[in-house]
Amino acid sequence: MTAAFTPSFPPTHGVAAIDLNADVGEGFGPWRMGDDDALLDVVTSANVACGFHAGDARAMRRTCEAAVARGVVIGAHVSYRDLHGFGRRDLAVEPDVLTDEILYQVGALEAIAHAAGSAVRYVKAHGALYNRCAHDDVHAAALVRAVLDHGGTLALVVAPGSRAESLGRAAGLHVVSEAFIDRVYRPDGTLVARTEHHAVHDSIDACVAQALDLVRSGTVRADDGTTVALAAATLCVHGDTPHAVATAQGVRDALRAAGVALRPFT
Amino acid sequence: MTAAFTPSFPPTHGVAAIDLNADVGEGFGPWRMGDDDALLDVVTSANVACGFHAGDARAMRRTCEAAVARGVVIGAHVSYRDLHGFGRRDLAVEPDVLTDEILYQVGALEAIAHAAGSAVRYVKAHGALYNRCAHDDVHAAALVRAVLDHGGTLALVVAPGSRAESLGRAAGLHVVSEAFIDRVYRPDGTLVARTEHHAVHDSIDACVAQALDLVRSGTVRADDGTTVALAAATLCVHGDTPHAVATAQGVRDALRAAGVALRPFT
Amino acid sequence: MTAAFTPSFPPTHGVAAIDLNADVGEGFGPWRMGDDDALLDVVTSANVACGFHAGDARAMRRTCEAAVARGVVIGAHVSYRDLHGFGRRDLAVEPDVLTDEILYQVGALEAIAHAAGSAVRYVKAHGALYNRCAHDDVHAAALVRAVLDHGGTLALVVAPGSRAESLGRAAGLHVVSEAFIDRVYRPDGTLVARTEHHAVHDSIDACVAQALDLVRSGTVRADDGTTVALAAATLCVHGDTPHAVATAQGVRDALRAAGVALRPFT
Amino acid sequence: MTAAFTPSFPPTHGVAAIDLNADVGEGFGPWRMGDDDALLDVVTSANVACGFHAGDARAMRRTCEAAVARGVVIGAHVSYRDLHGFGRRDLAVEPDVLTDEILYQVGALEAIAHAAGSAVRYVKAHGALYNRCAHDDVHAAALVRAVLDHGGTLALVVAPGSRAESLGRAAGLHVVSEAFIDRVYRPDGTLVARTEHHAVHDSIDACVAQALDLVRSGTVRADDGTTVALAAATLCVHGDTPHAVATAQGVRDALRAAGVALRPFT
Repeated sequence: MTAAFTPSFPPTHGVAAIDLNADVGEGFGPWRMGDDDALLDVVTSANVACGFHAGDARAMRRTCEAAVARGVVIGAHVSYRDLHGFGRRDLAVEPDVLTDEILYQVGALEAIAHAAGSAVRYVKAHGALYNRCAHDDVHAAALVRAVLDHGGTLALVVAPGSRAESLGRAAGLHVVSEAFIDRVYRPDGTLVARTEHHAVHDSIDACVAQALDLVRSGTVRADDGTTVALAAATLCVHGDTPHAVATAQGVRDALRAAGVALRPFT
Repeated sequence: MTAAFTPSFPPTHGVAAIDLNADVGEGFGPWRMGDDDALLDVVTSANVACGFHAGDARAMRRTCEAAVARGVVIGAHVSYRDLHGFGRRDLAVEPDVLTDEILYQVGALEAIAHAAGSAVRYVKAHGALYNRCAHDDVHAAALVRAVLDHGGTLALVVAPGSRAESLGRAAGLHVVSEAFIDRVYRPDGTLVARTEHHAVHDSIDACVAQALDLVRSGTVRADDGTTVALAAATLCVHGDTPHAVATAQGVRDALRAAGVALRPFT
Repeated sequence: MTAAFTPSFPPTHGVAAIDLNADVGEGFGPWRMGDDDALLDVVTSANVACGFHAGDARAMRRTCEAAVARGVVIGAHVSYRDLHGFGRRDLAVEPDVLTDEILYQVGALEAIAHAAGSAVRYVKAHGALYNRCAHDDVHAAALVRAVLDHGGTLALVVAPGSRAESLGRAAGLHVVSEAFIDRVYRPDGTLVARTEHHAVHDSIDACVAQALDLVRSGTVRADDGTTVALAAATLCVHGDTPHAVATAQGVRDALRAAGVALRPFT
Repeated sequence: MTAAFTPSFPPTHGVAAIDLNADVGEGFGPWRMGDDDALLDVVTSANVACGFHAGDARAMRRTCEAAVARGVVIGAHVSYRDLHGFGRRDLAVEPDVLTDEILYQVGALEAIAHAAGSAVRYVKAHGALYNRCAHDDVHAAALVRAVLDHGGTLALVVAPGSRAESLGRAAGLHVVSEAFIDRVYRPDGTLVARTEHHAVHDSIDACVAQALDLVRSGTVRADDGTTVALAAATLCVHGDTPHAVATAQGVRDALRAAGVALRPFT
């Protein structure tokens, strides 16, 4: 389903700095999700939900203010219009509608980020849209077009090897590849599906090791033991699992101990 | 319920130009409402629904493009979060939430207006929020704060004599008073409630006469026959009644015949 | 994508009666769609939207009351949860969720139909769910399970040759096949896709001819000129196109003139 | 705002049994709220959210199945249509719409409760609707009419002294008064507003004492120290505060130790 991974820029061997990003602001109305404050204490970039899969205006304001207080960069975490499914369900939305819905989400967050004293610096697709943009030209093009229609100045965070990466680079966008610290990779550079038992690393140590490999040598060890080139300018840490925050903290501490600076990619 | 009307700036006797505004983009998903193209052919300012009482990203894009094609100025028609009630129902939303929801709507429209080659120039409250901002300090202040938090550069269209007008002026905003061409006024400058039989003029001629009075002498003839000062820099025409478009066209033609230019207030 | 058509019960040669069904109650909040009163004057079964693709509690009540006033049978027109897309977009909902969402819609309509003096007699999937149940075992099984979980007493209206038909019959449900009077069929008994130019008959006469063929001989003339067996106990008339109501009336009149009684299938 | 409390049936001195009810099923999509399993282990009646302030079809199914497994009676916890505000915000909905929306919610839950092997036995208003039905004849009448339109067989749980109680009894409904174990009462039998510091008892002991007073003598000790008659056939325990479950368990144990049986009111 996903194209085999082709490294799209030179491996970041020995980078002195890396970005950590996390999904935040994923409550809605009376409901909360994740420990945003703890995550924002760790990361350098915050993917803020914009109301289509989670988040609402008040949560966005609070999240932006919390990010600003910590010097964390703000990105728009855009999604299919599917609050009930948390944006995790594939939806056959028309590409024109999708482009406008992404613009809508980015603009809404911009006004709120501005009120909080900051600005939106990048766009990252969420959930099913992120996954579909790995292999589907139509939705990946709709995403790229939204960033272009917005003015073309925002960075676009993508999965390495995704159609969004290719189309984004072809369109001249500032495309930023990301890797996951807690997800296991296949030899072709794609992720082991969540439906498989070994999709997620089961220890903080494994996450730390993967993060160090990604930063030091631009590689990950795939689930068959082979080493795969994976150039990433930002590492995604998750907040929705029991040990997520501890993992994120462990990775941050290990990177710092290894002399790697944590710095926003933008 | 509404404070007695106090003209808040000198009557616009003999103005040479006036703005006409109308609510547009009020469809949602598969549903349509009103004849936007016909209205946009008449007005100089378009109050674009932002998804909270009506409108969605695609409708906003199309409406903005249609406005841009005609040189019509774009404003954000902001509302309580009440799609099912079309924003016409009073909702006890917390003021902080309301402020952020208005920012959200304005920002969403800004990104889309920008993509269409224009920009948002003003904010106007819709429906129940508009009515409540006539007399309620808390929601009027939340509206004013949203425009301030946004940067304070957008104009705020209000009912003359409303709390939104007072608080907006006190905050230093560019406040623009509007009058209605098809609604009947009371001697205190407020509108006859829609629940009363004579709330709306029953002929195009009466609407035209009211428009000419408003522009020439800054007055309206109230339902008791008295003349009331009503300074308005923009006249609202409606599109959701059978003769709405014909009325709007009639008013436009009569104003032009009387030597009044139609020009955006911003 | 769709299994070749296999007639699942003997052709209804020379039936003396047929059912006409139509989609109604497809407004939402302030928005209207179609001319329900005119359609309800023609049909014998009403597919009432239940709030997931269209419809709301008030519209459901009014529609049920209008159906009751005309002796029209009420069915639940169930959909994916996708108001913005009018249920026309494929949605990767989990089957357990889908089953419960169908139960939810049917139950909601039952309480309202009961208050209007009637009852829900059948279930029909709408839009993308209907189309997917033609070929997808998982969603078709979720639909069938919903009718079973409800008690198994409601009829299930399906496309002939669909997975919903096969699974519904295998489960012992009262399965009712329907044909469309205005859609063109392929030689395998499936519909010409709406994306093709000749998907819909362009004259009332063609619709009337198709209806008479379906009722008299249990066949349709496919787009290649061949005759295809198509056993249908109910004929669907549409209301959302310009000539829809006139077409429905023409079909009704032609059937009556041919001595065919219009009678609910339940 | 609320009418002074008039005991509407003889105090339940020395009742041998009482009902405990709690709000459950208040998640939505990916979000959870409260510890339903723990609450369902304690109570005899479950107020199940029906999708308008919280809850969705899948949550309703799971909650009903969990209630059935414990022999807990199921009631419909109906609300204004306000998911984002969790039904806690006053909404100026038209009474006809409200009646139909309540029917919709009750019917939806009925189909799901039936699939889970049980049935809906009562209706209880949630949040802002509950509060408004204390003093507002129009919404209280809309609630009562919904229960009547449904068939009049469901019990209606109300606040003692509320308009819903009066109108429900006048309409011949089975009206059940409830008291709160964790809320402080005023001398007139109404609740101390949540905005006041002493609105909620700050110890489990105080809750237990209030529960025992309610059951043994049909009274509560008001916030001025006076004793107020308060006839309640069901006691509401909350689940959304830190010590809620422990409080509910404490009350249950104390009542049992006092020889009071816990039994559904229906």
